[in-house]
Amino acid sequence: MNVNQVVQSIREKVAEGISEVYFVACGGSLVDMYPSKYFLDSEAKKLVAGLYTANEFVHALPKRLGAQSVVIVCSHGGNTPESVAAAQTAKEHGAHTIGLTHNKEAALLNYSDYSFLYEWGDDSNVKNNPMAIILDLAVQLLHVVEGYAHVEAFQKGLESINGIINQGKKQVAPRARVFADKYRNEELYYILTSGASYGHAYGFAICSLMEMQWLNAAAIHSGEYFHGPFEVTDKETPFILMMNEGRTRALDERAQTFLNQYAEKVEVIDAKELGIGTIADEVVEFFNPVLFYSIICVYREALAEVRNHPLETRRYMGKVAY
Amino acid sequence: MNVNQVVQSIREKVAEGISEVYFVACGGSLVDMYPSKYFLDSEAKKLVAGLYTANEFVHALPKRLGAQSVVIVCSHGGNTPESVAAAQTAKEHGAHTIGLTHNKEAALLNYSDYSFLYEWGDDSNVKNNPMAIILDLAVQLLHVVEGYAHVEAFQKGLESINGIINQGKKQVAPRARVFADKYRNEELYYILTSGASYGHAYGFAICSLMEMQWLNAAAIHSGEYFHGPFEVTDKETPFILMMNEGRTRALDERAQTFLNQYAEKVEVIDAKELGIGTIADEVVEFFNPVLFYSIICVYREALAEVRNHPLETRRYMGKVAY
Repeated sequence: MNVNQVVQSIREKVAEGISEVYFVACGGSLVDMYPSKYFLDSEAKKLVAGLYTANEFVHALPKRLGAQSVVIVCSHGGNTPESVAAAQTAKEHGAHTIGLTHNKEAALLNYSDYSFLYEWGDDSNVKNNPMAIILDLAVQLLHVVEGYAHVEAFQKGLESINGIINQGKKQVAPRARVFADKYRNEELYYILTSGASYGHAYGFAICSLMEMQWLNAAAIHSGEYFHGPFEVTDKETPFILMMNEGRTRALDERAQTFLNQYAEKVEVIDAKELGIGTIADEVVEFFNPVLFYSIICVYREALAEVRNHPLETRRYMGKVAY
Repeated sequence: MNVNQVVQSIREKVAEGISEVYFVACGGSLVDMYPSKYFLDSEAKKLVAGLYTANEFVHALPKRLGAQSVVIVCSHGGNTPESVAAAQTAKEHGAHTIGLTHNKEAALLNYSDYSFLYEWGDDSNVKNNPMAIILDLAVQLLHVVEGYAHVEAFQKGLESINGIINQGKKQVAPRARVFADKYRNEELYYILTSGASYGHAYGFAICSLMEMQWLNAAAIHSGEYFHGPFEVTDKETPFILMMNEGRTRALDERAQTFLNQYAEKVEVIDAKELGIGTIADEVVEFFNPVLFYSIICVYREALAEVRNHPLETRRYMGKVAY
């Protein structure tokens, strides 16, 4: 089944109407759900959205979970115990579960009423990657529940984002090499952004830098930066600022103005400059994180290369008991 | 008006029923709202909760905001431009606004249908501080909208938490001095916790450490720790783990077990050991952050003293244009 068919099928089963959508996963997969949570929080008038790291969902189950809920669970390997448990718990409470994984043998599939075996890797079209599939699910769910005015604009965006990304990756490749060379000895980075992209600032910090490079890192919301975090700003501390196109751009621009004055190690990744502006104004902000994920992958690969620390190196994950 | 009177007054004005509560603030004030957002996300079956940094709320206004919404805005000084703008925007959209501030001349009050001039400082009872007032508002709003089974248990908790805290502060005072002495030269901390307390891990990182001590810091959710962040764990990196009592304690215990094995610089603040368990099981988890805030203040004061960096020192906030 495709996204539309899954959404239609759930709608037919929930006579009283779907009342909430939960996005549940761990780490990098949870990051890929943030844009959908942001989308529904912003655009929905009735449909409720929840975002949970899987183990918290299982241990502190929201009381509204039930037969009118849709629970979307994503796990790349499909066997993350917390995520599998979350899907199982959701089913036990009568919810409709959608599982996304890259592994057709995944345990997650045992508890998924509907499933997507998504594509992965540099050669795949991002519209077939989990972030875009989940966002498409959120958009279509909103549309069947209460109508969403910009479904067509969103679909057009979904068709064009991969081309924008391919061009953007070429555009930043030389910059990423300069960045990696310049910052090869840094031990800490702050990642700033706002809006739909905030999950990917968090993701770049916890997955790309902490997990894959054993570097210290933290995400800072561009809006929150001025209410505490900016006091660490100096000429020695590196910042990566992902500037969105759309409604929250003003927040990122304000951070940029401050960084230009008080910091010296600042790398700006600007979605507008990278050509995202061809997507319709009404929906463009939701595509920023799709672009940023692919772009920051170019940066992390460059960093891994100069640091001689391959992205797949782990000391604990999958190696020790925890 | 007290919390009950405010809630009753709003209920009378919203004939169709209050449908959502937005918690909107910046930095430390936003942190104080996280437990209320967590409470409603967990306990509500109908009432919807949203948590926003004020500038994002203003720039990317949620479409469901309207005459059935309650918007709670908190600003200590009461003149934070983003927070004042958020209250103004909320009012323009017909929402019912509740403002909390420590300043009776606050601009925020111009856009607050209801207001709380809260107490502040070491001598105040925490039940009169903003975190507890906002939590009480969330509990009472939930109760009038759809009924909440544990209102009395919550009220009892509210009456007893200040005594638990006073005892806890004495209990940790010597440990905080040892901690400060041991870690006086550290430049980075990770703060772990889960559940209702996660906002205060974030708050300790961005306010107490980054803003007030110019130290690097990041919050890590205990459940997310194993999905990326734990790869930075080593014998040199300091971690502060705030262990909750209640449903998410298992997540914190799992982090503790791992840290005991692979880290050496670990400070544990355990709500259970500090006596929070006298509060009823059904509501105890929502009081963890109230306890933790007061306890970590003891730690930050000890750290400020040995580092010779007073908590009120700023280089940018209120000193330069931004």
